[in-house]
Amino acid sequence: MSENAPEKVSSAIRELVHANHILFDQGVVDGFGHVSVRHPLQPDRFLLSRSMAPGLVTEKDVLVFDHDGAPVETGGPAVYLERFIHSEIYRKRPDVVAAVHSHSPAVVPFSAVTGTKLRPIFHMCGFLGAGTPVFEIRDYAGTGSDLLISDNRLGAALAESLDRGPAVLMRGHGSTVVGSTLRQAVFRAVYTEVGARLQTEAMKLGPVTYLTEGEALATTNTNNTQIDRAWYLWLKAAEKRSMAT
Amino acid sequence: MSENAPEKVSSAIRELVHANHILFDQGVVDGFGHVSVRHPLQPDRFLLSRSMAPGLVTEKDVLVFDHDGAPVETGGPAVYLERFIHSEIYRKRPDVVAAVHSHSPAVVPFSAVTGTKLRPIFHMCGFLGAGTPVFEIRDYAGTGSDLLISDNRLGAALAESLDRGPAVLMRGHGSTVVGSTLRQAVFRAVYTEVGARLQTEAMKLGPVTYLTEGEALATTNTNNTQIDRAWYLWLKAAEKRSMAT
Amino acid sequence: MSENAPEKVSSAIRELVHANHILFDQGVVDGFGHVSVRHPLQPDRFLLSRSMAPGLVTEKDVLVFDHDGAPVETGGPAVYLERFIHSEIYRKRPDVVAAVHSHSPAVVPFSAVTGTKLRPIFHMCGFLGAGTPVFEIRDYAGTGSDLLISDNRLGAALAESLDRGPAVLMRGHGSTVVGSTLRQAVFRAVYTEVGARLQTEAMKLGPVTYLTEGEALATTNTNNTQIDRAWYLWLKAAEKRSMAT
Amino acid sequence: MSENAPEKVSSAIRELVHANHILFDQGVVDGFGHVSVRHPLQPDRFLLSRSMAPGLVTEKDVLVFDHDGAPVETGGPAVYLERFIHSEIYRKRPDVVAAVHSHSPAVVPFSAVTGTKLRPIFHMCGFLGAGTPVFEIRDYAGTGSDLLISDNRLGAALAESLDRGPAVLMRGHGSTVVGSTLRQAVFRAVYTEVGARLQTEAMKLGPVTYLTEGEALATTNTNNTQIDRAWYLWLKAAEKRSMAT
Repeated sequence: MSENAPEKVSSAIRELVHANHILFDQGVVDGFGHVSVRHPLQPDRFLLSRSMAPGLVTEKDVLVFDHDGAPVETGGPAVYLERFIHSEIYRKRPDVVAAVHSHSPAVVPFSAVTGTKLRPIFHMCGFLGAGTPVFEIRDYAGTGSDLLISDNRLGAALAESLDRGPAVLMRGHGSTVVGSTLRQAVFRAVYTEVGARLQTEAMKLGPVTYLTEGEALATTNTNNTQIDRAWYLWLKAAEKRSMAT
Repeated sequence: MSENAPEKVSSAIRELVHANHILFDQGVVDGFGHVSVRHPLQPDRFLLSRSMAPGLVTEKDVLVFDHDGAPVETGGPAVYLERFIHSEIYRKRPDVVAAVHSHSPAVVPFSAVTGTKLRPIFHMCGFLGAGTPVFEIRDYAGTGSDLLISDNRLGAALAESLDRGPAVLMRGHGSTVVGSTLRQAVFRAVYTEVGARLQTEAMKLGPVTYLTEGEALATTNTNNTQIDRAWYLWLKAAEKRSMAT
Repeated sequence: MSENAPEKVSSAIRELVHANHILFDQGVVDGFGHVSVRHPLQPDRFLLSRSMAPGLVTEKDVLVFDHDGAPVETGGPAVYLERFIHSEIYRKRPDVVAAVHSHSPAVVPFSAVTGTKLRPIFHMCGFLGAGTPVFEIRDYAGTGSDLLISDNRLGAALAESLDRGPAVLMRGHGSTVVGSTLRQAVFRAVYTEVGARLQTEAMKLGPVTYLTEGEALATTNTNNTQIDRAWYLWLKAAEKRSMAT
Repeated sequence: MSENAPEKVSSAIRELVHANHILFDQGVVDGFGHVSVRHPLQPDRFLLSRSMAPGLVTEKDVLVFDHDGAPVETGGPAVYLERFIHSEIYRKRPDVVAAVHSHSPAVVPFSAVTGTKLRPIFHMCGFLGAGTPVFEIRDYAGTGSDLLISDNRLGAALAESLDRGPAVLMRGHGSTVVGSTLRQAVFRAVYTEVGARLQTEAMKLGPVTYLTEGEALATTNTNNTQIDRAWYLWLKAAEKRSMAT
């Protein structure tokens, strides 16, 4: 390990706390939902808060989880029931560095209807590409489940449905969005919600012009260079309205 | 009575004040609506604020009511016209420990239309089960009433319509939601509103996939173990934005 | 004049300032819109702010206007272009003590469509009765006007359209709501907006059950006894978030 | 240059900072979007912030740009990718003194649908006139662009589409609104968003009555005299909730 290894970890933890507060302040998560980041030194591990509302998370609430979604230190506090969303995506997708699971309100309806796909109508949502898959948990857990990704098998099935994409909807539940950095994952989680709201409104007005695949790709490339502009605003806003202090 | 009986009562009062502030801060109640809890020592009585906006309630505003909805201490302040919602539900439903009556905005439309039932499309609302009954007061008070549950007879009719369920809509008026704890009743009141908003939006997008009965049951069981996670967030938010101090 | 006449006036001014701040805080007015109250000692006069955003009004901004809508003290600050809304309603309606003119956002659409009437689906809006008239200014000012009630003639036409009712919509513009007290007018302005939003949402869900005339009347009578409950909450909220200090 | 030339510039910069904060506080811009003003002394130049979230802009972030959209001082901080929106509009339209580019949420859907035009249903939006043109960037940059106005040629094409009007929508992206003063441009940006929301809601209720051309012109003339009333309110609100300090 390099000399500043401990600093890398504490910096990752601090940024993860910021991500928690931003996602709450931007209305992506409420009491529920969670965000993780791959461990900066041990890529088969990840950082995730103990089970609590993201808006209240502080640095001391962040735990280390192993590649199976188990907390590395046993006997600790209660952990999220759905930590397997994170562990299985990190296992399947070496390119993914962060993941956000949420019930953000404009997205849930797209998870629960047939005949309409969440697709980008707006350049900030180009990353949604040709349309977002919907994970139907009934295909894996039958018709009487609690809809949660509560074990490795369901996590793997969700990761399969996510495939190479940036986002997967979860029927009757919400979505999971990933990124190659924590800030990108947060950015995408916010703009998945924004895009869902815009598409919902547009569909009431008339036939919608979606981004082409070429536009989706080009806007994504450009937006990837602009993420910090939003991040610093969101962080300031989250600190100003913080519930955690 | 046990030694800490007075503490049990003062603790129940404190929690009821919190419930009032949370319901206001989460937009479930405005100037109107009310929340009660069964008396912790005398199960045929309940605690409810005097007639005032929930967001302003303090501990000294909480009164004790008897099984007929009459305040135990006579000559006190004005009381809610609809206290009979609470008394008759407590009479009919020994399992109920708390009740929330509100005009929360996404729910009222479901009370006032025919052909659409409030049903869960979202795992956090699984408790809504196979659909929420609508109480039509015209069946009991005729076509010229003020729509209020202003006496024991109407309270009993409403309790009848609620039946064994967690929620009943009241046509042109709002809803009443119950729980086996105060926190569960508050949780359900918030998520009834959230669920109504999600269903309204989903219905515009295409045919909706509702939770199965099995899913409704399983999600309810899981969510019942997670209520405090939301409660502590909501309490923090309510305290931060409190109107009562 | 009685001994406490000056106190009556200063109390009316103070309450009018509160009404301005409440209407802003509740989202009924933005930079535009205005609220007046009949002069407590001289019933052919009324109190109204100088031309400014209601959210910023202070006591020293309140002016006295005569029965023709002219400020009693000449050479003062700029006055609202539409003060004739108030003067002509006070002239025609001795029962009216206060009037609110606003562009509240859920109401404007009802003013600008044909085939849908703003009607009460919700007991708090019973005062809307059998439906709210729409004033079409083209009938009085032709097809090239600025839509404003900018003289006595147009004010009288609007008052005619209001007739004996509590509210009149103004096509492409907003609404005017009146009351027999200032608090009642404010209460009705807030709940006209709330009711419009509820009706808009309900119409998307299915056939709507409106209040009967008997229910409209009975709910109005009951609600008239409950106005202060909302007023004190709204005042507290407006003071907490005040822009005027 | 006149004696108070430096003061004119510093005053323009201060007002531009206010405009940035107002547009953020009113929800017209989020992390993205920008507002410029023509240089008060050198009409072939304009003032615009460096690349950052408008809500965080301070006076020291404002830069001078030349008629080609290049920052006058080289080697400075990163600049907005779309500064050519501003430079080409100032070049084509000597009457324009200020321009706002935004992704305001109610407007984007109108940019992305066919068959519905953004038109004024509300007197505050009369400036929208007979309907707002939509700039389809595919006509100039093909079907694989990032949708941004990232060079002079695209800026000129957008300015061509804006023509003599106050606003142009940009497909899948947002809008650009101009004014003959900075305050007018901000006023129009806010009311373009308000008007889009009202039209969206009205279209769900029934056939819409739009303003006539005569009404559009007359309301615009009247509203132009009322801009400061909104400006001072918005400034107060923006200062109160400022993220920049």
